[in-house]
Amino acid sequence: MKTYTIGLDYGTLSGRCVLVDCENGQELAEAVCVYPHGVMDDTLPGGEKLPPLYALQHPEDYLLVLRTTVREVLAKTGVAPEQVAGIGIDFTSCTILPVDETGTPLCLNPAYTGERHAYVKLWKHHAAQPEADELNALAEQRGEAWLDIYGGRISSEWMLPKVLEILRDAPEIYHKTARFMEAGDWIVSTLVGKEIHSISFAGYKGLYHNGHYPSNDFMVALDPGLDGIVGTKISKNIVDFTAPAGVLSDAGAALTGLCPGTTVAVPQIDAHAAMPALQITGAGELMLIMGTSACHIANAETGKNVSGICGYVPGGVFPGLYTYEAGQAAVGDIFDWFVKNCVPAAYQAEAEEKNCNLHALLTEKAERLAIGETGLVALDWFNGNRSVLDDSSLSGLILGLTLGTKPEHIYRALLESTAFGTKMILDAMQFPVRGIKVAGGIANKNALLMQIYADVLNQSIGICQSTQAGALGSAIYAAVAAGVYPDFAAAAEAMGTPVSKYYHPNPENHAAYQKLYEEYVRLHDYFGRGGNDVMHRLHK
Amino acid sequence: MKTYTIGLDYGTLSGRCVLVDCENGQELAEAVCVYPHGVMDDTLPGGEKLPPLYALQHPEDYLLVLRTTVREVLAKTGVAPEQVAGIGIDFTSCTILPVDETGTPLCLNPAYTGERHAYVKLWKHHAAQPEADELNALAEQRGEAWLDIYGGRISSEWMLPKVLEILRDAPEIYHKTARFMEAGDWIVSTLVGKEIHSISFAGYKGLYHNGHYPSNDFMVALDPGLDGIVGTKISKNIVDFTAPAGVLSDAGAALTGLCPGTTVAVPQIDAHAAMPALQITGAGELMLIMGTSACHIANAETGKNVSGICGYVPGGVFPGLYTYEAGQAAVGDIFDWFVKNCVPAAYQAEAEEKNCNLHALLTEKAERLAIGETGLVALDWFNGNRSVLDDSSLSGLILGLTLGTKPEHIYRALLESTAFGTKMILDAMQFPVRGIKVAGGIANKNALLMQIYADVLNQSIGICQSTQAGALGSAIYAAVAAGVYPDFAAAAEAMGTPVSKYYHPNPENHAAYQKLYEEYVRLHDYFGRGGNDVMHRLHK
Repeated sequence: MKTYTIGLDYGTLSGRCVLVDCENGQELAEAVCVYPHGVMDDTLPGGEKLPPLYALQHPEDYLLVLRTTVREVLAKTGVAPEQVAGIGIDFTSCTILPVDETGTPLCLNPAYTGERHAYVKLWKHHAAQPEADELNALAEQRGEAWLDIYGGRISSEWMLPKVLEILRDAPEIYHKTARFMEAGDWIVSTLVGKEIHSISFAGYKGLYHNGHYPSNDFMVALDPGLDGIVGTKISKNIVDFTAPAGVLSDAGAALTGLCPGTTVAVPQIDAHAAMPALQITGAGELMLIMGTSACHIANAETGKNVSGICGYVPGGVFPGLYTYEAGQAAVGDIFDWFVKNCVPAAYQAEAEEKNCNLHALLTEKAERLAIGETGLVALDWFNGNRSVLDDSSLSGLILGLTLGTKPEHIYRALLESTAFGTKMILDAMQFPVRGIKVAGGIANKNALLMQIYADVLNQSIGICQSTQAGALGSAIYAAVAAGVYPDFAAAAEAMGTPVSKYYHPNPENHAAYQKLYEEYVRLHDYFGRGGNDVMHRLHK
Repeated sequence: MKTYTIGLDYGTLSGRCVLVDCENGQELAEAVCVYPHGVMDDTLPGGEKLPPLYALQHPEDYLLVLRTTVREVLAKTGVAPEQVAGIGIDFTSCTILPVDETGTPLCLNPAYTGERHAYVKLWKHHAAQPEADELNALAEQRGEAWLDIYGGRISSEWMLPKVLEILRDAPEIYHKTARFMEAGDWIVSTLVGKEIHSISFAGYKGLYHNGHYPSNDFMVALDPGLDGIVGTKISKNIVDFTAPAGVLSDAGAALTGLCPGTTVAVPQIDAHAAMPALQITGAGELMLIMGTSACHIANAETGKNVSGICGYVPGGVFPGLYTYEAGQAAVGDIFDWFVKNCVPAAYQAEAEEKNCNLHALLTEKAERLAIGETGLVALDWFNGNRSVLDDSSLSGLILGLTLGTKPEHIYRALLESTAFGTKMILDAMQFPVRGIKVAGGIANKNALLMQIYADVLNQSIGICQSTQAGALGSAIYAAVAAGVYPDFAAAAEAMGTPVSKYYHPNPENHAAYQKLYEEYVRLHDYFGRGGNDVMHRLHK
């Protein structure tokens, strides 16, 4: 009798479910459920207008994913619930919601359906920037040791700024909250019938490190209303990946259509979950997830503070390893911005004639250019800088424009700029990266981009063909949790997706790019480290 | 009996002739003759391939203008040749050609029709950049006093680099040359039957100042082959605007269809000729000619060296005044580049629907933006910097880009950048400019641009409606030369075109732009004065 696991990947717009054969990792079926409420950035379901920078979600949507997609993959494959050894879940983060003593989201309480702070605050809810700024200033002033673990700055996307925003803007909601929960933890708690909190969410987004949150002294200094929050509204009971979260309760089984008692893995952040799917389980290798933005995750055997990364968590991805995370706030988004806003009608017509999209046309033209031929260098800060400088007020720059500059010149300079941005992050990590694997839509779509990355980084880059690395990774977490494999290394080797294509660095190209990279670094430091604060002034 | 004069304006692609009523300056008729050979930048007439950066012309085209356009304006108006008091000519510059002892262009000699250096080198022939670099380095090293009169750098567009290029690349042509002549001087010499050289061409483009060229010592140090060039291949007989160049010879009369003995004015550079047409004849007022590039010309009562301007010439435009010239290497060209290369198909469709062009559409959208709202600042060096920094290797920059940046944001930032570039020039001139008048196609087409200039410069800007300011100016030069008016002030008052529209600065807008201008200056100095030589490195 074959053994299967299920991986559930909760993204920004939909939940995706895969049913995987544990023997070989084959994805036998998948199902997708688009969130009916999507991202609420304009109004609440009742029509109440939202302020700028809001990004909320509705927890009912997450339950709908459970109700529909698991049954769908079982039906598609004919696999019986009894054959499913376990279920694993990954989720966007920090995506948090306030729940009451029963674990019920406050926004489901009819008294609060019109109250925006009762809903799920999605990772990209950016309205807590003032609170993040205040938190950073205070932590720096007090010399809080934990600040350096997170690269010296806390993002407005993380838990504490969002919680502080609720306390300040909606004290009643704050006081009614029994627990602030990551949505991934809430879903798993719902399935197993007991409250759990994963080390991954707590470690990367909740300022939890080696058993500790920031001190109550700090919390009170930040706002007296936070007095006593750790251990009450913020749980201290954190679980790691050495054991399952639990087993499906009767209610969890009814929700999903699986059997009561089925193993449920500890949830993982969506990007991080992809690591075993890419067969990365040891120290040294870097995983690069490239989509609209990019995420850089690498394991090491020791932990040390690195300026400008997002943070590192012992055991945050695999037991026994320290996993570092960094990110670029925009990658594919920059190329999409360019194609939408800066490519003339003549190119559109040419693309239509060639029956390709504008990205393909520009890439084809850009491919013919020699390194440095564009005469351009760009800074990839179109959505600020998320790592190294961690400054959302920074902005993009294109330098070297002439009357002869063509769209493909700028397009290529933008591709290169994101590779330079990645190199800055790797250089900042200060530990040797041995090999890079890339997942994400762009990796399979743009060979020029991948060759540029290989040449700029002077590293071989392996491309993962699966576009379901997150869901497959969750299925691997489930297989380890259920004991199908003794550890992540064995599970990843059997179930992970091998590299489908390698890009190798060309030494001459690398040498040529080093010169351009020096220009990038010079501009990066001048505009990013106070040489000229023009970007901040223009931002205001 | 009415008195008329004729103005002939030799541009880059065509010659334009106007017949003007001296009483009121009314342009009674105009005629245009497009040069059959146009700008030869690819091949010679015989098919010989040209190297990069070449821009040649054929002198037969200039004669064709004489043969056709004067007769055409006479025919159109019924004015008799006897009623024409004088003819004035303005020409692009430095546009030079080598002629033999008889004044015949070498390129008309069958032995040299396949020799590129025998043709007219148009002002925008840029192949003599190495010679210009060498000349500048030597002049600086030797501390040549005349260098500072020309703002510290000589352009590759000027006479001596072009002559040196001929000596180096085609010594036979150099040795066959009896005289290097400005094309404007050559046409007037052809008309009056004696060789003349205008103070304007010699002063602004030939390094002639107060009776002197660079010393023979300098010439020999630059290249021994230049020994003795002044007084032989370069004429020392320079005429100013206090007297006519002469009168039409029989041959000149036959060429044009006018009467022998008709007064011919000393020729003027095309941009400079517009000054009396705009009724600028005294000190302080600035004339701004805006087209693909821009030219800034202002009179003062004294001469002084100003770093970064193109130069100043006593009596170069009007007897008794010092006239300063500066320029921006690209203005309209930048906006055209943007529209051709960077505006998406959706905008094209919207423009078609509104039945307007893309410039009009972008301007309409850009107009709705508040100052600073774009969050962008640009450097307008898309064709290098012709003044203040005088460095053709500099390039354009756009800073402040985000995923929300729209085409109209960039368009507005580019408009603003050219206004900032003009302000840099006015600030460098270091004498008070009282009032600005603008001529050129863009001035009448883009009210937003003109308001930006008024606000940035904090000056009222008067727009000259005539698109024939050059040809009208030449007709005024002819009227003064023929004695119809006693001086330029009287002639300009009677014949010049009054301002058709004023743009007045708004104090609040000026204050807002001052902040952006400070950013522009900071970037200008950082990238233009050695803080970061990235543009030079990328240019290589």
